[in-house]
Amino acid sequence: MSLVVVGSMAYDSIKTPHGDVQDALGGSAVYFSLAANVYGRVRLVGVVGEDFRPEDQAFLEERNIDTEGLERVPGGKTFRWSGEYSPDMNDRETLSVDLNVFENFEPKLPEKYRDSRFVFLANGSPGTQLSVLEQVRDPQFVMADSMDLWIQTQKHELLDLLGKIDGVLLNDSEALLLTETHNVITAGRAILELGPSLVVVKKGEHGALLFQGDEIVPLPAFPLEEVRDPTGAGDSFAGALMGRLARGGVADSAAFKEALAHGVVAASFTVQDFGVARIAAVDEAAVEERFQTYREMLKF
Amino acid sequence: MSLVVVGSMAYDSIKTPHGDVQDALGGSAVYFSLAANVYGRVRLVGVVGEDFRPEDQAFLEERNIDTEGLERVPGGKTFRWSGEYSPDMNDRETLSVDLNVFENFEPKLPEKYRDSRFVFLANGSPGTQLSVLEQVRDPQFVMADSMDLWIQTQKHELLDLLGKIDGVLLNDSEALLLTETHNVITAGRAILELGPSLVVVKKGEHGALLFQGDEIVPLPAFPLEEVRDPTGAGDSFAGALMGRLARGGVADSAAFKEALAHGVVAASFTVQDFGVARIAAVDEAAVEERFQTYREMLKF
Repeated sequence: MSLVVVGSMAYDSIKTPHGDVQDALGGSAVYFSLAANVYGRVRLVGVVGEDFRPEDQAFLEERNIDTEGLERVPGGKTFRWSGEYSPDMNDRETLSVDLNVFENFEPKLPEKYRDSRFVFLANGSPGTQLSVLEQVRDPQFVMADSMDLWIQTQKHELLDLLGKIDGVLLNDSEALLLTETHNVITAGRAILELGPSLVVVKKGEHGALLFQGDEIVPLPAFPLEEVRDPTGAGDSFAGALMGRLARGGVADSAAFKEALAHGVVAASFTVQDFGVARIAAVDEAAVEERFQTYREMLKF
Repeated sequence: MSLVVVGSMAYDSIKTPHGDVQDALGGSAVYFSLAANVYGRVRLVGVVGEDFRPEDQAFLEERNIDTEGLERVPGGKTFRWSGEYSPDMNDRETLSVDLNVFENFEPKLPEKYRDSRFVFLANGSPGTQLSVLEQVRDPQFVMADSMDLWIQTQKHELLDLLGKIDGVLLNDSEALLLTETHNVITAGRAILELGPSLVVVKKGEHGALLFQGDEIVPLPAFPLEEVRDPTGAGDSFAGALMGRLARGGVADSAAFKEALAHGVVAASFTVQDFGVARIAAVDEAAVEERFQTYREMLKF
């Protein structure tokens, strides 16, 4: 498969009711890659500072992740984020954000990445996402994530992007904000009208909704008692979804549905432990076992 | 089938972003019966005042609902409720509640109802629910609904009830309140320990979770754009669930799962129009068609 992800690389400090971690490896590109690598090799594009630990780069490389696209800025510092979750973990407060080298990140794809057929543009400004798209020669399926900040401040650029990509991933509140509606089903359908042939609306602990043509697929989250840290769940979801699609090499209705279920499964692993601890330890057998359990759950 | 429901009969005044109705036939026993009657005859126990319109009673009787258990209090007034929903319809404000004849309701089952094998105790005080249970000779499957008020004010009686019934239906916030936890999966499992062999946690627009033994089944809501009035969705859900179980006559794991899916389908009809308008108009063919659509949605 030829799958490339462009996104953030970070050191996260996270506090949840179940404990905390300091300066743990994180960022959208990291969670995405660690979920996608179960399905094949992943090409990563990101930026770090001089403080990025060599063992973290080795950790990624050992896991079938191509880091040729990892840019190291001399004298720079890696993006840092810290946050604290509410008791039920449905809300979180950002305690500090230091974008550092990520602030002026201008992603450059290594020459050998430019033939990638599957492309994931993790959350970033629509302008930056568009600049990546221009560097890929002949993509088969491009999916992007976004967030409320870009909907509020760069809606025009975001709409331009939506007209040029195949799939988009938003959470429920972002989908409502973008379409100015109160119903997520109406929102999902309205986003299809903006260009993408696939729209995924993430609902956190309530699962996700997939829209393609007239079809709507609502999938619940995998039920778990042990939710220790929700950080990275959405990016892991995207990683497994794109990884599964890229491995199959087809992007049709049945493939999307199965890929979505793989996304649900990956997110469920990620939240079971702090940071990337659990998702990085998952192998294909573990994914397959939980996928089958999940599939059986929904049969009646 | 022999299914009895004991619950409220009301006249509701409802305002949602899509319109409003005044003094519309409602109440838990009404919504339940109108969803359950698709599967067979339903025995209703409830109380109304002298103001209860004869045409409303005829409306129920024409729909395969036995109203011998409907008590009419001379000089009394029927329970009245009015409420207004928020723009996204996930919250509602109660504008007025007049319990009237429902306040001192002491349900009495007609002799011919006492052989009922399937029993649904709609929301009411645990003491009243227990008094109904004592009137049924040899029930096969008893399910009860409850609410935050009883958890807060009559927890001891509620725990007594839970030790004597087979299934319980709560919404997510009530399940968390009852078990003093933050995780609905933990809550569902903890409620199984209190006695019932089946626990259903309702999550409104996010669907429902079923717990039985070690099995957990998460089912999403049926995706709908046209949600006009959520009133009665939970009681319709219960009606279809119990109706489907009662018709099959078995209460095992596979039957519960299929019955839960029927509950999701019934709730989806109810919310499509104001009051009982939509659910009362649904026939078996419409239910079967949506049930098959829903089942296919969840196959991958």
